[in-house]
Amino acid sequence: MQLKAVEKLMQKFANRKEQLYKQKEEGRKVFGMFCAYVPIEIILAANAIPVGLCGGKNDTVPIAEEDLPRNLCPLIKSSYGFKKAKSCPYFEASDIVIGETTCEGKKKMFELMERMVPMHIMHLPHMKDEDSLKIWIKEVEKLKELVEKETGNEITEEKLKEAIDKVNKLRELFYKLYELRKNKPVPIKGLDVLKIFQFAYLLDIDDTIEVLEDLIKELEERVKKGEGFEGKRILITGCPMVAGNTKIVELVEEVGGVVVGEESCTGTRFFENFVEGYSIEDIAKRYFKIPCACRFKNDERIENIKRLVKELDVDGVVYYTLQCCHTFNVEGTKVEEALKEEGIPIIRIETDYSESDREQLKTRLEAFIEMI
Amino acid sequence: MQLKAVEKLMQKFANRKEQLYKQKEEGRKVFGMFCAYVPIEIILAANAIPVGLCGGKNDTVPIAEEDLPRNLCPLIKSSYGFKKAKSCPYFEASDIVIGETTCEGKKKMFELMERMVPMHIMHLPHMKDEDSLKIWIKEVEKLKELVEKETGNEITEEKLKEAIDKVNKLRELFYKLYELRKNKPVPIKGLDVLKIFQFAYLLDIDDTIEVLEDLIKELEERVKKGEGFEGKRILITGCPMVAGNTKIVELVEEVGGVVVGEESCTGTRFFENFVEGYSIEDIAKRYFKIPCACRFKNDERIENIKRLVKELDVDGVVYYTLQCCHTFNVEGTKVEEALKEEGIPIIRIETDYSESDREQLKTRLEAFIEMI
Repeated sequence: MQLKAVEKLMQKFANRKEQLYKQKEEGRKVFGMFCAYVPIEIILAANAIPVGLCGGKNDTVPIAEEDLPRNLCPLIKSSYGFKKAKSCPYFEASDIVIGETTCEGKKKMFELMERMVPMHIMHLPHMKDEDSLKIWIKEVEKLKELVEKETGNEITEEKLKEAIDKVNKLRELFYKLYELRKNKPVPIKGLDVLKIFQFAYLLDIDDTIEVLEDLIKELEERVKKGEGFEGKRILITGCPMVAGNTKIVELVEEVGGVVVGEESCTGTRFFENFVEGYSIEDIAKRYFKIPCACRFKNDERIENIKRLVKELDVDGVVYYTLQCCHTFNVEGTKVEEALKEEGIPIIRIETDYSESDREQLKTRLEAFIEMI
Repeated sequence: MQLKAVEKLMQKFANRKEQLYKQKEEGRKVFGMFCAYVPIEIILAANAIPVGLCGGKNDTVPIAEEDLPRNLCPLIKSSYGFKKAKSCPYFEASDIVIGETTCEGKKKMFELMERMVPMHIMHLPHMKDEDSLKIWIKEVEKLKELVEKETGNEITEEKLKEAIDKVNKLRELFYKLYELRKNKPVPIKGLDVLKIFQFAYLLDIDDTIEVLEDLIKELEERVKKGEGFEGKRILITGCPMVAGNTKIVELVEEVGGVVVGEESCTGTRFFENFVEGYSIEDIAKRYFKIPCACRFKNDERIENIKRLVKELDVDGVVYYTLQCCHTFNVEGTKVEEALKEEGIPIIRIETDYSESDREQLKTRLEAFIEMI
């Protein structure tokens, strides 16, 4: 019972490379990005293309380790390796790559990467106070200037409004998807949803919107018919899982769980909160709110997790950390304590992109899911 | 041929706990700190005591790992463990602990630590631009307010001037010490200098100044007589080595090297650059210049290392990284490249506080020192 919308998604993904190069030939500029903090509205408003960059595969880790330490997050190493090996079409298509000072591993890796590709780094401050917001608003303004200069296209009020409305539309569809996942049985598997989030970073935004609109209709049908998936309802929270990285969701769904939500950059942190207004400042404020563990005192994230557990009627939480990701790893202690206080089962997993721990993780997840 | 000044240092260190508690009884407030970025002038100007906190021993790592991940820098874990175990007199004497957003491991650890001790976190931004400096100046102003409030003592212009002059005096003495280390044979071993830096964070500043004044006289004598230590002249660069952590310097000096300089927070980053003026802004500017790897684009550090190699006539550089310290680890690649370009031998070492790799490190360092 594969969903037609998911088939369409896979088809669009298969064609994405060709489409992107065609868009480039037509004169559109491509802005590569790593992170949910990059305000894609700015890029879209200049008729340019924001595209996520590869970083989800183990294959490019060895070449990265020629320059980067072993003790570093696999996402960072994989990304760097993809650029070094020139094996990611989105990297190769990018006219400029937008980085940000989220985690220090990326921040320092960018110092090496910028020797291989033109980069622009946005300063996301550690803190959430007013002075930090001011810096962030300036950074979004600087991005606007850069994008206008690179594309030669002026970002008019009208174009900005159009882009904001479009990305808000995308967010609305993801909210609807989450709404549908509240149902029992849940009408869609977590692995399918993960792929939608992963490809949402890669596809043309119009295609993602089209797929999501189809999907929502299909899921509404399923819900009406009472079709879907049973199993222990799992919320995944933690580090992003970029395209290529599906290990944990696969394992959870192999051992009797079904992932009903993702508190992640490939999940709620990608779509929650609308841009509320049509100014650069409104855009900046929306992105500034993203509750990433890289920020100091990130209690909003804990509140979000607790809210999602209730809303999605979650049986257990899988806390997912990429190896050596200090921010999510340390924040995990606070999340674990907060959930235990509410009697919500949680399992913490730290892993990389290798397959060597698959069996061991399967055993742990199996035991967790049996227990809850 | 133990130096008398070093004997005095050890004596003062042995008495420090008693002295500190006596100072506290006399009504002086104690401000604990982790990092060379804390502007101690502000604390001294309010007749309060800045004191470094323990974090150099493996003993407190296991208790820390109850709350913190294994894959985290030993300095962070050891510090946290010392507070949790209540086994560090400087922690226990502290009325308030000053943290800063240097590395993300510390930043996130502070979120857990502040449940055990009153903390104040200073926002050091990622970048080195004007907007970031403005934030940092505000942070130093906030620290002044906090210190005044905690101590009840007003920081007058006069008191601030006095404190600035005193800390600049300390810096001047460290510059003189470095000047003396240019001599061949070098009149002092690296292990002795390391202890001076380590204890400079812990001792009363007047005592450190007294020891350094004695030391410089003694070393001048040695230089006159041509006494000192021969061996391959080594510069250590990288992570700080706080009290208790002497492994690498010991090993270097066991296998025929002599450490003649430390580009480190227990080294040049502690004393280089004077506060040039008598305002809060002047203080902030001096600290903002510290070239720590936590900052984005830290090329000043590379220039410093190259300069130190020349000034101290260094034969080889030991790049020291604490396990999982992403910033120094990744920056190591750029440092390595820059030094190789100039034909300066470099060895990179990543280690923790355990003794298990001592023999292996000894073999590697021995081979390095034979080769250069």
